[in-house]
Order: sequence, then structure tokens, then C-alpha cells
Amino acid sequence: MGAGNGPEAHNPIFQDPGEEKPGWNHWLLIAAAVVGDVPVGRTANDQPSAALVIDGKLIADEIRFRIAEQIRRMKDSVGKVPGLAVILVGDRRDSLTYVRNKVIACEDAGIKSLVTQFPQNCKQDDVIRALSTFNEDPSIHGILVQLPLPQHLNEEKILNALKLEKDVDGFHPLNMGNLAMRGREPLFIPCTPKGCIELLIRSSVEIMGKNAVVIGRSNIVGLPTSLLLQRHHATVTILHALTKNPEQITREADIVVTASGVPNLVRGNWLKPGAVVIDVGTFPVEDPSCENGYRLIGDVCYEEASKVASAITPVPGGVGPMTIAMLLSNTLDSAKRAYDFT
Amino acid sequence: MGAGNGPEAHNPIFQDPGEEKPGWNHWLLIAAAVVGDVPVGRTANDQPSAALVIDGKLIADEIRFRIAEQIRRMKDSVGKVPGLAVILVGDRRDSLTYVRNKVIACEDAGIKSLVTQFPQNCKQDDVIRALSTFNEDPSIHGILVQLPLPQHLNEEKILNALKLEKDVDGFHPLNMGNLAMRGREPLFIPCTPKGCIELLIRSSVEIMGKNAVVIGRSNIVGLPTSLLLQRHHATVTILHALTKNPEQITREADIVVTASGVPNLVRGNWLKPGAVVIDVGTFPVEDPSCENGYRLIGDVCYEEASKVASAITPVPGGVGPMTIAMLLSNTLDSAKRAYDFT
Repeated sequence: MGAGNGPEAHNPIFQDPGEEKPGWNHWLLIAAAVVGDVPVGRTANDQPSAALVIDGKLIADEIRFRIAEQIRRMKDSVGKVPGLAVILVGDRRDSLTYVRNKVIACEDAGIKSLVTQFPQNCKQDDVIRALSTFNEDPSIHGILVQLPLPQHLNEEKILNALKLEKDVDGFHPLNMGNLAMRGREPLFIPCTPKGCIELLIRSSVEIMGKNAVVIGRSNIVGLPTSLLLQRHHATVTILHALTKNPEQITREADIVVTASGVPNLVRGNWLKPGAVVIDVGTFPVEDPSCENGYRLIGDVCYEEASKVASAITPVPGGVGPMTIAMLLSNTLDSAKRAYDFT
Repeated sequence: MGAGNGPEAHNPIFQDPGEEKPGWNHWLLIAAAVVGDVPVGRTANDQPSAALVIDGKLIADEIRFRIAEQIRRMKDSVGKVPGLAVILVGDRRDSLTYVRNKVIACEDAGIKSLVTQFPQNCKQDDVIRALSTFNEDPSIHGILVQLPLPQHLNEEKILNALKLEKDVDGFHPLNMGNLAMRGREPLFIPCTPKGCIELLIRSSVEIMGKNAVVIGRSNIVGLPTSLLLQRHHATVTILHALTKNPEQITREADIVVTASGVPNLVRGNWLKPGAVVIDVGTFPVEDPSCENGYRLIGDVCYEEASKVASAITPVPGGVGPMTIAMLLSNTLDSAKRAYDFT
């Protein structure tokens, strides 16, 4: 999936496509039952919080600043800049927004970006042909296909056509295998999981030897996050819709990363006092008091959790900005490899 | 690693090469401290047991019988049999034993087997050349390189030269990635993990929704077993040498699969009453009363565990025989694909 900031990383529809409905429904029912008494969508500034608020926007800005610096140095030194190609099919409003955000972030960092847009009813061969052109273009170091694709296109086949060395989303199974296996190194680490770990590291949260719970097992977030936490020597448990006692297991965790696709799933009483909470969820909920008519909430009931956790990411302004920063970082890394630039 | 039955699958030296020594030492110290009061090496027949003894030998024999049946049918139908090639470097006694066992098992099942043996000081190019010959040989459907290789050979490079379609050990990162990712299918599932799951399924142990603990995170056993349990919808926790409270976490598990490389690590009080225990460990300990002068023990203190568990695999006679049955099964599957035979 094309990495982005915002709801795209956590929409249950494409985050966990193979998930059994009864299971998710069970969780959704829990969430629905509590929504009445949960103050949804509060952000860090709304109320006093016992927890350290992990400011993803600030951390992402720092990372993007350093990336821009390195790209200037690359330009001065080898006369080249990284290039990112985005393939967009159709005109879904959310996809257009994500792609626009990526293009703007690329421009800010000094990365050349190209967007190829196809109509909703385009042919698979046309998409693959465009991919192949980008595969061969030496000025392009990262390619991403903005998901979801229309039903008539074979997502797996299209993604498999992407050159491994340019798979900046890191979703290729070979990349995933190398992420999972000890002693192997993936070419790219998927953007959202990489962003979650960066938030922990830059907030001085020790991972080694800690009990970590990952809620949700999507290929895009849950799975790679669990593998990455294991690489950092956490003891990891992966919860999913068929887990029978998620709150009890979560209460044992020092670190909780949640990408369940269920808003407000994680209540305060799911957490061990002092736990660190990374919330990947993002769901728009109507709110006439907001400028756009809606506000974003996460997987975690922030108001409750922030009183129990020692550190927590807000929604928005937590993981979201990191995803796009990691996309820029992966694209820069790819260009560095291509130009043998350190 | 070449799949086998016996200690090869669990020797900590090559099972978890990247593991931090202090961690393992910590566990080894625990094991050493308790060894005095632990009745090591008892098998299922030595004493009354509360638990169902999962008879791996019997189950493996049934599987091997069915495999032989299918191979006869294949021979009658397409005039071909599966072929397995083994590459053996040096003359390690244990490796020779494993290879001999594999060859005998192949013969019993009707699989053609070829062994190419190189001297200890052989050149890497010679090994890779032999591999390439087997890669191109249409009568060979599975290739395995018996590990460990001598130090001067690059294991990763040699294993990477193996054609994916013939990687019956299933250790290639692409296979591992496809095992990890939902909606993807690996060509082969590594033999020991596949054997563990088969033991559970054939003993009517429900996996879906159960809490499972995997002790050990080797690429060969722990990692693929955890991925496979997740595919079967267990809630999985992976413990390793840096886990701080392994006994406490294990006590929450309905299913425990242990491949820690530490004999007698798992005591009775590590287990929840009624847990199902699959013991991948195999360690020879001196015992003059045995014919060979030694007997085998596992990761689990069998005498204690069998009083707490509802079902348990003995050592020997549990997982070991399944590993080799799964190697035959993978080789047959590969031949079926090659001949489009169902």
C-alpha cells in the first residue's frame, strides 16, 4: 500500500482484508458499546495528561529536516537527487489527498516526484507497463502504487512487478522474510512500523527485554511492526480479532502498538500503569465544531489511556506524520545505494 | 538447514546463531541449577502420566505410509517418482547420521535420493556448481544442503543459489515472507514447524483463538513455528533469551512449543494445567544403562510437565520423526507441482 499519513494506514477494510468478520464484529461491538461514555477524539492539548505525549509531528519534522540536509549534500556531491514515482488509479478522494501530501513532502525534502494517474477503468497491462518504465528509470529510486486499487486489477500481480530495489513501501514478501529472519537485512522497512519504532527510540523507550503487544496483524502494520519489535529484542505478542482475552494480555505489556482498525478499542483499563502506547489508528468522526466538520480519533481511548500510560502518541500528530517521513527516508536510502553515497 | 530427526534441529549452536550469549547463559544457568533435582530423560513409558502422550513416531509412520501410497500412484500414473538431492560437506558424524536417515526414509517412501559429498576443505564454487546441476535436473524436486557447513563456506550464498521451487527445507526468505504474510502462500513450510502443527492437528488440539507460546526464535524452528501458529489463528508470543519472565508468560499459554536449545528448561510449574506441550529439543545425555551409552532429553522436564499438561510430546519419539516425514511430504508436493499431479 502506498505509505501515507492519515486514515489510509488503518482502515480495517484494506488493513486486514483476510480477517474473519465475526471476530472484528466482536471487537466493533465492544467499541460501539463504550462509545457513549467515551470522550472521543480528544487530543493532547485538551486536558491535563499524566503521560508524556510523544509528538510525532515534531519528531517527523526533525527527521525531514535531516533528510533535506542530506539530499542537498547529495546534490552538491554527485549532482543527483532521489526520485519517487507514484502510481495512482482512479480518483478516490482519500487517495488523491495522500498522494498530494506525499508530493508536497517530497518537494519540501528536495526529492523529485512523479505521479502517473490512470482512469478507474484502466487495463492492468497499462499499469504494469508504467511500473516497468519506472523500474528501468535510473532517476527513480522509489516506486509506490497507491492502494486500494480498483477490484478488476490484481494487486498482488501489480505489486510483484515492482523492482525490489525500488519497493520503498517494503511490502514485498522477500523484504518481509528478510525482516523476519535473524541475520538477514531487508532492503526497506515498511514505513508505518519503522515510524513506530523511531518514535520509541527517539522517546528513549527501551525495547530490549520488554513485553510488547501488537494489536492487529495486517501485512502493512501489525505483522512488520511485530517483526521489527522482535529485531529489537522485545518479547512480542500479536493480538487479533480471534484473540479471546485481549485486554488481559495487553495489561501485561510494557509497550502497546495498536493498529486494530477499531476506534477506541483500547481503554484505560487495558493498560499496565506506565505502559508506552503507540496508536496507529485514525478514524474520522463527525464534529461540527471542527473546521472540516470532522476530527480524527485512534484505536486508543486517549483520555483514559493518557492517565495510565507513561507515554502515548496522540491522534492526529503521532504516528501519521512519521509514516511519510519514513517514506522519504526509504527513498533517500534507495538513492544512496544507487549512487553509492554515504 | 537440512531437515532431520534428532538433535540437529535444536542444537543451540546453529539454531540461534545470533543470540546474545548472556541471555542464553542465564537460561543455561537456570537449567544447570535444577538439573540435580530433575529426573532427566524419562520417556513416556517410564512412569504413569496424566497427559496424553502425543506419539510422533506413530503419526509420522501414518504420514509416511500415505506418502508412499501417493508415490506409487504417481509412478503408475505419470511414470515418475519424486527425487531428493542432498549436499553434504565434510564427515561430521551427526551429519552423516542425519543424511543416512533421510536416505533410508526416501527409499522407504519410494523417493529417489542422491547424495553428493564434498571433502571438508572443498571450494565454495564446487558446492554451488553441484547445486546448480541439481537445480537444472528435472528428476530432482527437492534439494537440501546438510548444515552446518564448514566455516570457510558462505552459508547464505550457498543457500541463495538453491532454486526456490526445490527449497524443500523452506528456509529461503521469500518462502518465509510468504509464510508470514496473510493472503500469500509459501511454496514450502519448514519441516520441523510443519511437523509440530501436524502433531497438534492430528491430536485434535484446537489452535484457533488459543494462546500459544513459542520458546526460541531461530530461523529454523522458532520463527516459522510462530508464523504458522498465527496462520492457524492462535495468539502467539515468542520468548527468547532476553525475555525477562518466561515462566510467567508460559503459564498463560494453552499451547507451548519449545525449541530453546536449553535442556530441561521448561519445568512443571511453567505450565498452565491442561496446556499442550510440543518439545522440539533433543540433547544427548550420558547414560550407561542405555545401549548407546546415552539417552535423549528435551527442552521440557517431561516427568513434571506430563503431570500438568493435557498432552505432551515425548523425547525421543515426538517431533523428531515428524521432521523427516515433513521432508518427504515437501518433496512429494514439489514433484506433484512439477508433474501437475494431484
